[in-house]
Amino acid sequence: MTTDFHPVLIAGQWRPAQAAGVFHAENPATGEPLPDQYPVSTWADCDAALAAAAQVAPVLRAAPPQQIADFLTRFAARIEERAAEIVEMAHLETALPKSPRLAGVELPRTTGQLRQAAAAATEGSWALPTIDTKLNIRSCFEPIGPVLVLGPNNFPFAYNSAAGGDFASAFAAGNPVIAKAHPSHPGTTCLLAWEAALALRESGLPASAVQMLYHIQNEDGLRLVGDHRLAAVGFTGSRAAGLRLKAAADAAGKPAFLEMSSLNPVVILPGALAERGADIAGEFVASSLMACGQMCTKPGIVLLFEGAETDAFIAAAKQRFEATPPAPLLSAAVARGLRESVLALQNAGASIVTGGVSPDVTGYRFANTLLSVSGAQFLAEPEKLQTEAFGNASLCVVADGAEQAAAILARFDGNLTGGIYSDTRGGDDPLYSRLAPLLRARVGRFLNDKMPTGVAVNPAMNHGGPYPATGHPAFTAVGIPASLRRFAMLACYDNVRPERLPALLRDQSPHGGPWRLIDGAWTRSNAL
Amino acid sequence: MTTDFHPVLIAGQWRPAQAAGVFHAENPATGEPLPDQYPVSTWADCDAALAAAAQVAPVLRAAPPQQIADFLTRFAARIEERAAEIVEMAHLETALPKSPRLAGVELPRTTGQLRQAAAAATEGSWALPTIDTKLNIRSCFEPIGPVLVLGPNNFPFAYNSAAGGDFASAFAAGNPVIAKAHPSHPGTTCLLAWEAALALRESGLPASAVQMLYHIQNEDGLRLVGDHRLAAVGFTGSRAAGLRLKAAADAAGKPAFLEMSSLNPVVILPGALAERGADIAGEFVASSLMACGQMCTKPGIVLLFEGAETDAFIAAAKQRFEATPPAPLLSAAVARGLRESVLALQNAGASIVTGGVSPDVTGYRFANTLLSVSGAQFLAEPEKLQTEAFGNASLCVVADGAEQAAAILARFDGNLTGGIYSDTRGGDDPLYSRLAPLLRARVGRFLNDKMPTGVAVNPAMNHGGPYPATGHPAFTAVGIPASLRRFAMLACYDNVRPERLPALLRDQSPHGGPWRLIDGAWTRSNAL
Repeated sequence: MTTDFHPVLIAGQWRPAQAAGVFHAENPATGEPLPDQYPVSTWADCDAALAAAAQVAPVLRAAPPQQIADFLTRFAARIEERAAEIVEMAHLETALPKSPRLAGVELPRTTGQLRQAAAAATEGSWALPTIDTKLNIRSCFEPIGPVLVLGPNNFPFAYNSAAGGDFASAFAAGNPVIAKAHPSHPGTTCLLAWEAALALRESGLPASAVQMLYHIQNEDGLRLVGDHRLAAVGFTGSRAAGLRLKAAADAAGKPAFLEMSSLNPVVILPGALAERGADIAGEFVASSLMACGQMCTKPGIVLLFEGAETDAFIAAAKQRFEATPPAPLLSAAVARGLRESVLALQNAGASIVTGGVSPDVTGYRFANTLLSVSGAQFLAEPEKLQTEAFGNASLCVVADGAEQAAAILARFDGNLTGGIYSDTRGGDDPLYSRLAPLLRARVGRFLNDKMPTGVAVNPAMNHGGPYPATGHPAFTAVGIPASLRRFAMLACYDNVRPERLPALLRDQSPHGGPWRLIDGAWTRSNAL
Repeated sequence: MTTDFHPVLIAGQWRPAQAAGVFHAENPATGEPLPDQYPVSTWADCDAALAAAAQVAPVLRAAPPQQIADFLTRFAARIEERAAEIVEMAHLETALPKSPRLAGVELPRTTGQLRQAAAAATEGSWALPTIDTKLNIRSCFEPIGPVLVLGPNNFPFAYNSAAGGDFASAFAAGNPVIAKAHPSHPGTTCLLAWEAALALRESGLPASAVQMLYHIQNEDGLRLVGDHRLAAVGFTGSRAAGLRLKAAADAAGKPAFLEMSSLNPVVILPGALAERGADIAGEFVASSLMACGQMCTKPGIVLLFEGAETDAFIAAAKQRFEATPPAPLLSAAVARGLRESVLALQNAGASIVTGGVSPDVTGYRFANTLLSVSGAQFLAEPEKLQTEAFGNASLCVVADGAEQAAAILARFDGNLTGGIYSDTRGGDDPLYSRLAPLLRARVGRFLNDKMPTGVAVNPAMNHGGPYPATGHPAFTAVGIPASLRRFAMLACYDNVRPERLPALLRDQSPHGGPWRLIDGAWTRSNAL
């Protein structure tokens, strides 16, 4: 066994992995392997990381929030200092464009998330501190303990297990993080974890507070999730992998926050098409093909109504799909999965409007693919026709009327998002009123007249939704401060002596004046 | 098969059950069956209830909160009007004292919960409405859908599946409830469901919004939980039953809020014993034997430190346990379970200080039982010595010092509560500082100088805790408004037109001026 591979970050040290094997990242634009070798860790590495995380959890729990915030802020600054190198590496590993995507959009979003999380940690309102002065009962959210973060392939920065939204939320809530890199961008994760380790040292926090493994075997992942030293899991990725992790977490009675597949249905009502069909076709295609369709919120299903305007919409979308050169997909696995999903949709009765083939070009690419199916056929195969095609493919479902559209909506699985386009003069309103409640109940974020891609990091955002889009419909993965509460437990103090209370729950409002619910009123003032 | 049994409440009708069998309640004070016969429903009844609940869920979701509140308030008033009869029935079925327990404490708590839930529904702050005016993104919690509530044996009113805390929370959040009565008090549940049905009619809400089955077969319970028409489960009861339901809910990707077993450890530090040992012994015995030990928050484990004061504490507790006549237990099953648990503790090395036998008296009783075990033995059998003994039994664990006490705390399972008694002059402070963080992380509600029984229905309360005390450490079963959020999904509105927004998320603050987080500040005013 060669030892010529990157070290892993365990217990504050970059040290040789106890490796079961090695792997390379690939350049998706060429399909060629990149030179560096990374280890697949064995259970020994997982066990060591768990032991270190368990040891450091109480230290982090007791650390001043300002110190947690100091780390997050320094980490953001370090990422920015090294941005060119990090962007270059991510571009090599993902083939996502350096500009604007990686350098201009995703990297600033990532450092912005870290800084928002730092501000939330310092300020404290995220914990919903609640005080009853008469009975002297007080409660707030507190750190849950060591968190395993498994990031997806499609956001090498903003969802990176060592720097992204789950990382920032879990850490800001006061928890040590064990980051499991996505094997399609290990070099990017290495650079980010490297900067995290340096920022930890600068902030004076324990060096084990952030650990990183490049890859683990499936069975070790499940064992990690079930281990009593781990408190919670944050995962973004495929439904199949998510459900395996969920089963392991459920069996151990452990919260797992899973963002899985989502089709993000968009309903386009006839009046909207008549009014501004060409514009909507443009918005749809831009959203569907953004990042080559590899967005969690890609509009994967469009529900339309039979008629000439719908024919024109599909024709316009087809033309735009064909006019856009397909970008590289993130990996061979994504390209293979996409091909299989498109075939599954065809086998369930969908027709190819355009695409459906792997073009004879370099790298992992698939022709921009638009499919369509009748509403009747959708109702005949509702499960198969909700197969997620991760990548540059979307399905138009054409209903024969309101009744059928309602029946289709009633068969939709839980999704992250769902939206309705309607006309601006009220012609679509009766149909909207009938369909909106059906869609509303099945999605986390409900939109009007807008495509679902573009998830603002905003306190009112919900990037979550009913199963199987996620594992629990009450939580969001994006949007600070709410995302922090995933990695927290509700901690109540009953008759606890004043000097022993956490700062957040004392009569005297702590530094920064967090919002606290005191005797039924939200206030930034002292209690009493 | 006789049909001489009580009808069930399905789809707004009291109708004959499709019964697989019948059962009687028993009078625990005598062990005699009570005259009425109740049905064990088959799947046909469950299916009919699910169908009705699914149909009514959108209606309830769209109902004005004031109407939901009107029902809850009328229901509370109806319970009070019929209080004497309801108390008499509960006394017969549970042998809990009519006064003060049932009439003076539990019934007012129950109607108080219903009225608090009504106020929360009307006011709306429970939903944490959050508005970003710049991006026009808005979110709040909304009803999750049909909820199955399974209540426990030990609170025939306050946790009753058709009137208790889970019922009130689920309904106030806007969900239809399917109540599964506890088979040890069907007559009480019948009276409560009867009044609920009348209150529904008076409030003009759909009659299917509250349904009630007396009993179902285990496999039908699991099927109910897994059915796609059900959205969530509220359960209070044994760990064994809770874990079966959890597995079914997890497999279906459905939130289940489970309140299971809890030992509620109390740590009594040496200085506290020296200062006020006799008082603490009195508090401990009163708390341990309250309702014959059948409280979710009974102090089931007391951690003490070797020494003369601990010997005196145990002797004082023994004397009080022996001087108190044992009250009837709730059922033959509870009496049997208690006997088995005490035996299991003995087999794991605990010694009987007093009790441990079934006295030769009428009804389901067990001698007040105090056990003790050394810290070393506890550490040798930490799992077996955490067997819950539901009823009038508690275990003293005597540690040989701080080191051992810390090791014992580190082995404690998740609990609803945990507390520490310490002296008032600071002598115990070093020991407190060492042990408190260990206990804090393992319990939902952490107390000082106070026994854990007596759960105030208060916004700052947490009646929840780490697994296996509950299924998720971020939620509380008691305390309005937080308990409502268990039965809710996070619903985000992105770019939704103003007139289509729910009242809670419009610029104009709705009736009552709920607290809303608008652009980062909590306010009761309009947006903009």
